[in-house]
Amino acid sequence: MSDLRRDPITDRWIIVATDAPKTPADFERETHVRDRGTCPFCPGNEGMTPPEIAAVRPDGAAPNTSGWSLRIIPNKFPALRIEGGFDRTGDGIYDLMNGVGAHEVIIETPDHAKDLADLTEAEIEQVLWAYQRRSLDLRGDRRLRYLLIFKNYGETAGASLVHAHSQLIALPIVPKRVNEELRRADEYFEFRERCVFCDLIRQELEDRDRVVFETPEFLCFAPFASRFPFELWIMPKTHAADFGQIAQAQIRDLARMMRMTLRQVKRTLHDPSYNFLVHTSPVFDHIREEYHWHIEMMPRLTRVAGFEWGSGFYINPTPPEEAARILRQSSAS
Amino acid sequence: MSDLRRDPITDRWIIVATDAPKTPADFERETHVRDRGTCPFCPGNEGMTPPEIAAVRPDGAAPNTSGWSLRIIPNKFPALRIEGGFDRTGDGIYDLMNGVGAHEVIIETPDHAKDLADLTEAEIEQVLWAYQRRSLDLRGDRRLRYLLIFKNYGETAGASLVHAHSQLIALPIVPKRVNEELRRADEYFEFRERCVFCDLIRQELEDRDRVVFETPEFLCFAPFASRFPFELWIMPKTHAADFGQIAQAQIRDLARMMRMTLRQVKRTLHDPSYNFLVHTSPVFDHIREEYHWHIEMMPRLTRVAGFEWGSGFYINPTPPEEAARILRQSSAS
Repeated sequence: MSDLRRDPITDRWIIVATDAPKTPADFERETHVRDRGTCPFCPGNEGMTPPEIAAVRPDGAAPNTSGWSLRIIPNKFPALRIEGGFDRTGDGIYDLMNGVGAHEVIIETPDHAKDLADLTEAEIEQVLWAYQRRSLDLRGDRRLRYLLIFKNYGETAGASLVHAHSQLIALPIVPKRVNEELRRADEYFEFRERCVFCDLIRQELEDRDRVVFETPEFLCFAPFASRFPFELWIMPKTHAADFGQIAQAQIRDLARMMRMTLRQVKRTLHDPSYNFLVHTSPVFDHIREEYHWHIEMMPRLTRVAGFEWGSGFYINPTPPEEAARILRQSSAS
Repeated sequence: MSDLRRDPITDRWIIVATDAPKTPADFERETHVRDRGTCPFCPGNEGMTPPEIAAVRPDGAAPNTSGWSLRIIPNKFPALRIEGGFDRTGDGIYDLMNGVGAHEVIIETPDHAKDLADLTEAEIEQVLWAYQRRSLDLRGDRRLRYLLIFKNYGETAGASLVHAHSQLIALPIVPKRVNEELRRADEYFEFRERCVFCDLIRQELEDRDRVVFETPEFLCFAPFASRFPFELWIMPKTHAADFGQIAQAQIRDLARMMRMTLRQVKRTLHDPSYNFLVHTSPVFDHIREEYHWHIEMMPRLTRVAGFEWGSGFYINPTPPEEAARILRQSSAS
């Protein structure tokens, strides 16, 4: 079990692993871990992972055998566990609770050599469908307040296994960054009776200089106050608070947008490490209709220094207008 | 000149470099930059840096020549420039202003082979004195609202030069993270008429299990909700909002605490990259007396993954109680 602890100064919740605390020697060892030995995500090695939650098996084979095209498994070293109650407690000025939640892995393809960017539109659609399916399944658990879907690609981005995969973490709290977005969306809606994200999309579509790609349903743009060089946001053009309610046709369009964007980033930025996250409304009690779900993608081109960490104030060496121009141009060529 | 831009969703301000925007090729090159060629921070190479702002020269030599024991210079590639006005403007839902501010470098020692941890207490005292001196000087400029003093040590922590140095950035805005701390300190004071940091210190001194070191004036502890393994905060035990008002005797005590902490981190964690930041009250208009200045130190032992970036929700593999125990034990041996 792990602890969930709240920082009394910033209200940030963090997960502290208490089962097998890492010591200085563990960090030394980690630096030397590389892609070697047998890959637990490859077909034929299904026994190396916990039993699967779901899979796509075109050939109708038995669970936990090869023949799948996509596989969803519990994380072998989960940050949170699904069993047990919260036991919310206080300790003087501190608040904590048990690390209850879910931590799952979506293996995106059986092909060890391919990343998401290398998949077909249909294959990416299947990955997005898996995101949606797990989102809808997990919201049945009333203890969970937020579903965070994300991908770490490349060592710099924090990936510990090279085989293409995304992760899903279901949390008993709403993460700080999402809470901030919700608060602002709420304030803005109170004040203007409009969605701040919809206004933002309207302005980006007018200005055009930060837009990278547009499809019938989605916009990919470099945000005005990008924290990182070549940071990209993908947003549905029509207001929608909840990723879980995405329609089939929209998934198809999003798959096309994701493929274009990922391929472009890979080609133009020389296959960088990257992270992306799905930001969506909390699911507890009710959907927050003033929110607008979107995907934030961050190629990891620069090291984030102490200045950024400790201040929440970022220095970005590439203006988003320039990043968008480079990505658009490279596309045309 | 650079832009200061505000994210309309999170109110985060960021600096965008607009002078010489970095392109994909620049990021490729950067990966290969290492410690080579002539060090601009070494004695004898004073001509390679912009003219010095101040220096400690025991031998009374002329400015910008060797013989100094500490040197303060403008950053050669500043994130912000001191000249000009803000030109605060709006662009639809976006806010921006000119990148007015200061960006200085404190060269901590003439010895290329030493880090701050390797200096004597008297030498560290001199570095802290330089922090204070620049803090007091820069607050005369009424355009500046916040002084951020920080250090990046090691490549992983974002240091671009190996020669021991700290940095100071004077900003026309209060950074997001500090604003959050201020807001909470303010709310807590309203509610309890006590400082939240003072309450935290009181509890840490009672619990003892997160305390690493204690001196007459300072406490070094692993915070309850540490974001990173072996994260450490150094805090004055007596309430003080403003680092700039630190007394001479306190500086001496802090130098001792910094030296103990840095040496312990270096020894126990095998000389890791690290960042530290001085969190202090904004200086504009008045000191925020409900705040409590402190230093946050983060050894860079793990890669921060997408999950953390995009959610503001951290997973820490080492409980702070365990980190503190390891650091205390290693000290005794």
